[in-house]
Amino acid sequence: MTGKLYLIPTPISPTDIAWVLPQLVQQSVGAIQHFVVEHPKTARQFLKKINSQYALQSLQLQELNEHTHDKDLQNLLEPLLAGHDVGLLSEAGCPAIADPGAGLIRLAHQHNIMVIPFVGPSSISMALMASGLNGQCFAFHGYLPIESKARIEKILSLEKLSIQQDQTQIFIETPYRNQKLLEQLAKTCAETTQLCIASHITAPDETITTKTIRQWRITPPPNLHKIPSIFLLHG
Amino acid sequence: MTGKLYLIPTPISPTDIAWVLPQLVQQSVGAIQHFVVEHPKTARQFLKKINSQYALQSLQLQELNEHTHDKDLQNLLEPLLAGHDVGLLSEAGCPAIADPGAGLIRLAHQHNIMVIPFVGPSSISMALMASGLNGQCFAFHGYLPIESKARIEKILSLEKLSIQQDQTQIFIETPYRNQKLLEQLAKTCAETTQLCIASHITAPDETITTKTIRQWRITPPPNLHKIPSIFLLHG
Repeated sequence: MTGKLYLIPTPISPTDIAWVLPQLVQQSVGAIQHFVVEHPKTARQFLKKINSQYALQSLQLQELNEHTHDKDLQNLLEPLLAGHDVGLLSEAGCPAIADPGAGLIRLAHQHNIMVIPFVGPSSISMALMASGLNGQCFAFHGYLPIESKARIEKILSLEKLSIQQDQTQIFIETPYRNQKLLEQLAKTCAETTQLCIASHITAPDETITTKTIRQWRITPPPNLHKIPSIFLLHG
Repeated sequence: MTGKLYLIPTPISPTDIAWVLPQLVQQSVGAIQHFVVEHPKTARQFLKKINSQYALQSLQLQELNEHTHDKDLQNLLEPLLAGHDVGLLSEAGCPAIADPGAGLIRLAHQHNIMVIPFVGPSSISMALMASGLNGQCFAFHGYLPIESKARIEKILSLEKLSIQQDQTQIFIETPYRNQKLLEQLAKTCAETTQLCIASHITAPDETITTKTIRQWRITPPPNLHKIPSIFLLHG
């Protein structure tokens, strides 16, 4: 019998864990002894908050992050093949969504290992839900190109796509480039295009605001510098 | 002072609510007296499970569903404008994602009403996370066309798009047509295309399986008839 691979979302803001993780999910995580984590230090901080049945130092943490080679994924599968349940968690939010982990999950499917996702915070879902933009048809693109010309072209193509397909376009930026991205969106998009900016999701100072580009141009720009944000656009 | 519009996800399977809704979310929902709901009967069943501070018959439930006209949305806003907090909930999962509600949320933003999404089960996020398919870039399309020729064309275009953009394509079907859709996917797609079928998410009999089309063709087909499922494809 192989173990099961549990996918464990983690908090996306410094908020009480009882806001973002259901009680039975917390209890189940507390019963797992083997983990695959993005960074052991922050993973331990999270696992400390969960009432684990095991002493923190007896938890088995293996690393999976941007430095992990595909050929090392097979090693991460070992505890599962030996019959242990394994919890996969990333730094914040849902593993394998805009985060590492998909390669390991694919490999688990190839070995007929059961993969079980838990409920928890997803900034993409929560921003989309709260944006008021089309939730029947949407696309997430991750990061836009960094280079200015390529980025403007991408913004224009996303705006066009959103009109043609009635599809909400979702993207993110590294927080210290948010302000610049907002300026470029305000300059580049049509006046009537809707833009939602969702910042600090689940935190006490969460703000989720949808306005037309015309309105964003006249509103004093929000301070997004270094503030985790997600952008949603619909032309 | 206007009230706040809370977006409340509801269970997507008949499971213990402590698996899918965080404790503080349940507590907050219990403190709300005004709701906008898809169907009052099932909404009451859900609200009964939450320990409301109010007697069930004293809760104010207004309807928002496929019969609601845009011109009626303004009425739904009244309690908010009168200073009451309002909870928006749909039949299952996250309001306004593959479900009604976006129109009301957009209107709330136009009135500068705070919109606050709660954590809860989203079949799209959970299926994507567990699929092992690309979670850095993905698109959700809702229902595919019903008519056979149009549907086959759509499947082929989604498969092409997934290769060109390295974008996971996500779609759903009314449960009694699932079996037919699976057959069409197996016939239409390339042998190497990956297909994930996620059924009964969060239920005790949840199954989430990713295989190539080649493997799905030789696997005895799962019985998907009338079983709530979500499909994810990557060429």
